[in-house]
Amino acid sequence: MTFWKFFFNYHKSKTSDNKKIKKNKELCIREVNRERIYLSTCKNIDVEDLEKLCDSVGWVRRPLRKVKYALENSFLIVSIFLYKENKKQLIGFARVTSDGSFNATIWDVVVHPDFQGNGLGKLLMHAIIKELRTYDISTITLFADPEVIKFYKHIGFTIDPDGVKGMFWYPI
Amino acid sequence: MTFWKFFFNYHKSKTSDNKKIKKNKELCIREVNRERIYLSTCKNIDVEDLEKLCDSVGWVRRPLRKVKYALENSFLIVSIFLYKENKKQLIGFARVTSDGSFNATIWDVVVHPDFQGNGLGKLLMHAIIKELRTYDISTITLFADPEVIKFYKHIGFTIDPDGVKGMFWYPI
Repeated sequence: MTFWKFFFNYHKSKTSDNKKIKKNKELCIREVNRERIYLSTCKNIDVEDLEKLCDSVGWVRRPLRKVKYALENSFLIVSIFLYKENKKQLIGFARVTSDGSFNATIWDVVVHPDFQGNGLGKLLMHAIIKELRTYDISTITLFADPEVIKFYKHIGFTIDPDGVKGMFWYPI
Repeated sequence: MTFWKFFFNYHKSKTSDNKKIKKNKELCIREVNRERIYLSTCKNIDVEDLEKLCDSVGWVRRPLRKVKYALENSFLIVSIFLYKENKKQLIGFARVTSDGSFNATIWDVVVHPDFQGNGLGKLLMHAIIKELRTYDISTITLFADPEVIKFYKHIGFTIDPDGVKGMFWYPI
């Protein structure tokens, strides 16, 4: 099975994969020579690495102290790492706030531009959904920018079901 | 100042009120003879009382075990209690999931029908916003049913800012 085929089939695989992530915190999803790509649910993320990844897609820099606190208070973090020549690079990331019971909201979904368009985002999303389903969480939500709405629809997300609207409050 | 005037003015008051909630967990917002109404941020809510309140507005019953877990994992809970003749009744409730840093989502906003239309919902929402702002959380979100969109707009919430859409994933 090729690398990308593995990616696209990953989410169709049985729950044993999911258990594997939970148990080991890391799941190798590619290993060719000295290059390995890992999917991880480990919450111990280097905030500088995360901000570098966010820089790569042009997001505004955030105070590291706040990022660290947000990571600590996230219910679930799913990351993708590239291990190459003894170096570890964070290339994908998403995190979730949740009550661990009914509702969850996904934030900060990001894939490094060098690795976009190959199913990594899809892989991240399916890993999150799988993990949340192990808690029997049935309402998984997110707020999508216009340019990624199609992507999330493809994953199975819907807009405004039964007229329910996402609403925002910002400080003036 | 009359009772309801106090309600509507509460959210305009200075942050000292908020500190009072944080410190004491309960803030008396009305006291007439033996009837008192309290606003509380105490997380120790009786799940049976909460489900009774949810029954009163026709919500579907949920497994108490799951409700208890959701309360334990909520970042913030704001409740309104009526103390009358040595009895304590939960008459308003809302809870929040959050990373404690950037984002928060408000769930399960409910006011007992006997007390609706008098500003209690508004009071709950303003208390939540105030409390979240003490953590410098700037993105406060919720998912509104069509019949309450106008209410949340009045509080200051907006729909789909810059085309950002609330999206849902449910198990099939």
